[in-house]
Amino acid sequence: MNARPEVLIIGTGLIGTSIGMALTTSGYVVHLRDQVPGQAFVAREMGAGQLEESGVIPQIVVVAVPPRYAPQVIASASREYPKATVTDVCSVKEHVLSQAVALGADPSRLVGGHPMAGREVSGATGARVGLMSDRVWIITPGLADEWRIEVVTDLAIACGAQPLRMDARTHDVAVARVSHAAQILASVLAASLLDTPEDHISVAGQGLRDMTRLAASNVGLWTDIVTANAEPIAEVLDEVIGSLQEIRSALRPDSNRGGDPEACAAEIRQVLVKGNDGVARLPGKHGRDATHFQTVAVMLVDQPGELARLFAASGTAGINTEDVRIEHILGRPSGLVELFVAPDQAPALRQVLIERGFDVRT
Amino acid sequence: MNARPEVLIIGTGLIGTSIGMALTTSGYVVHLRDQVPGQAFVAREMGAGQLEESGVIPQIVVVAVPPRYAPQVIASASREYPKATVTDVCSVKEHVLSQAVALGADPSRLVGGHPMAGREVSGATGARVGLMSDRVWIITPGLADEWRIEVVTDLAIACGAQPLRMDARTHDVAVARVSHAAQILASVLAASLLDTPEDHISVAGQGLRDMTRLAASNVGLWTDIVTANAEPIAEVLDEVIGSLQEIRSALRPDSNRGGDPEACAAEIRQVLVKGNDGVARLPGKHGRDATHFQTVAVMLVDQPGELARLFAASGTAGINTEDVRIEHILGRPSGLVELFVAPDQAPALRQVLIERGFDVRT
Repeated sequence: MNARPEVLIIGTGLIGTSIGMALTTSGYVVHLRDQVPGQAFVAREMGAGQLEESGVIPQIVVVAVPPRYAPQVIASASREYPKATVTDVCSVKEHVLSQAVALGADPSRLVGGHPMAGREVSGATGARVGLMSDRVWIITPGLADEWRIEVVTDLAIACGAQPLRMDARTHDVAVARVSHAAQILASVLAASLLDTPEDHISVAGQGLRDMTRLAASNVGLWTDIVTANAEPIAEVLDEVIGSLQEIRSALRPDSNRGGDPEACAAEIRQVLVKGNDGVARLPGKHGRDATHFQTVAVMLVDQPGELARLFAASGTAGINTEDVRIEHILGRPSGLVELFVAPDQAPALRQVLIERGFDVRT
Repeated sequence: MNARPEVLIIGTGLIGTSIGMALTTSGYVVHLRDQVPGQAFVAREMGAGQLEESGVIPQIVVVAVPPRYAPQVIASASREYPKATVTDVCSVKEHVLSQAVALGADPSRLVGGHPMAGREVSGATGARVGLMSDRVWIITPGLADEWRIEVVTDLAIACGAQPLRMDARTHDVAVARVSHAAQILASVLAASLLDTPEDHISVAGQGLRDMTRLAASNVGLWTDIVTANAEPIAEVLDEVIGSLQEIRSALRPDSNRGGDPEACAAEIRQVLVKGNDGVARLPGKHGRDATHFQTVAVMLVDQPGELARLFAASGTAGINTEDVRIEHILGRPSGLVELFVAPDQAPALRQVLIERGFDVRT
């Protein structure tokens, strides 16, 4: 391979274009192909590389098309460039890669990839050179030659990502649990709001907003993802359904245990305790537990400069704000801002803010 | 009733003490009682009122004990003060109020209440005078005299809350859907992480964090709430379980439709579309839809003053930040901050931030 590897990106949507921009910045020579020529043109304008010309022989092909088209595109790219390393960016790996091999892709040259990055917008115009920066980029080696795995690893690093090797099945089981099942729960919960009367919805708070945020996701993409990762997701759903059925049967008066408040309470308590323990396994910032922070809440008037004034006050006091959350109050030009700080800094922060005239609530 | 209504608060935990502090500030005379005398003493030190003395005849009794003890306490307060208006603050209404009446509470003097406020901490020391400010305070009139309903409405207003009348059953059905079911889903999802291998969890992103945040809730309180609102919650769970089972049966290869990718995709697509529509019903800030904002993402170095510098830059440009989200990157002293602004302000904000040397990612 020469000093400036030649890459062909097939599919110049959000991810393909962002990769092109990052690789171009890192000195790769990037060629762009899209089923929709206008899309590749936009990607070029975004700085993702040059439009593909005939005669180019890439060393690496990055297939960045939706999961439903990926196997076919991977297989034909593998045939078209019989020496190239072929990788993809699908968020489902086993199904896509085995389909690709079934369609004729050469497994010794096929390295699966999944950059854990996205945005709430799609298409080349949403692409950003730093989209992959500091994100995990899972690499599933499959049956590929070791040097080809390293080629794809280098490519991920060139995009600023953190490569992480995992076998395809492990990847799929992991994302089924930590991503895909959560998407389905959010969608199901949000869907149940469709028939909810308006005044019931008016009682909703931050909790429901957190629990349904994912439900705003792209329908086409997620249909593909869920369909392609059906089996691992079904396993997680089985578990979740089983847990919910146990709770429901403890709650329902017509069930065996129904009407027994003690048994019901014991069942509920057990689930809540497990939930406490489970969420504690999720790493907080820098691996520290999120519960190690204290909140300082301030009611802000909703006008330009108020957040600046707030952070200027905390910043000059040498206090490091670990997280911020703004809860807006319906119909009022104000918002409650919660600053998460180390417990030993909370009293000082409160004092500084009160001195500067802020409406400190906690 | 005289100019300074006399209130007895029974139960001086987080909510009772916060109400006492707010009412004292508003000119009410507040008496404090707690099963644990030390707790009432702390509440007094917090400014929630005076310790109860014998001979005091309150016009209003606020029962602020956990749901499991509330019916009993409401009933005995109703007997102890035969002319007083009695209200409570439980987040479940029909069960608690009907139990209280069954135990001898006078329904004509009983007005249910539910201030929609809380904190992640409990106890009198966590109380804040502004805890109820601008929060909805649901009032369930039941069979109470109209003037007594107005007494409790005035009390809610004196705490800075927004009173909202609703019948008890409607309240319970509403909170079962918009709060209690979400709590159970969060706990079940978080509980499923208990047996998840560490490397799978390392793949988790912001979505799972959102979906499990509620799972860190107080076990004792939520056991009471869920047990007391069993029937409406069971109804919502039935619906959710039904939806999940449909999805699972579309996904599973051993089911009727299993193995039919088109049928599976159609099913998934339908759920995702409904989820899109359902989440759009949740009001965003000021009633506007959250999707009307654009995000500007900036990679910040994690040191005091960086957020201040960021907001100072946006504030001086006259840009109103509608929301803020900080995504921390594991193991790195930096964080991706997303600023949500009106779409027409996003380009100007990007320009200002780039000019000031920020690492703007989107």
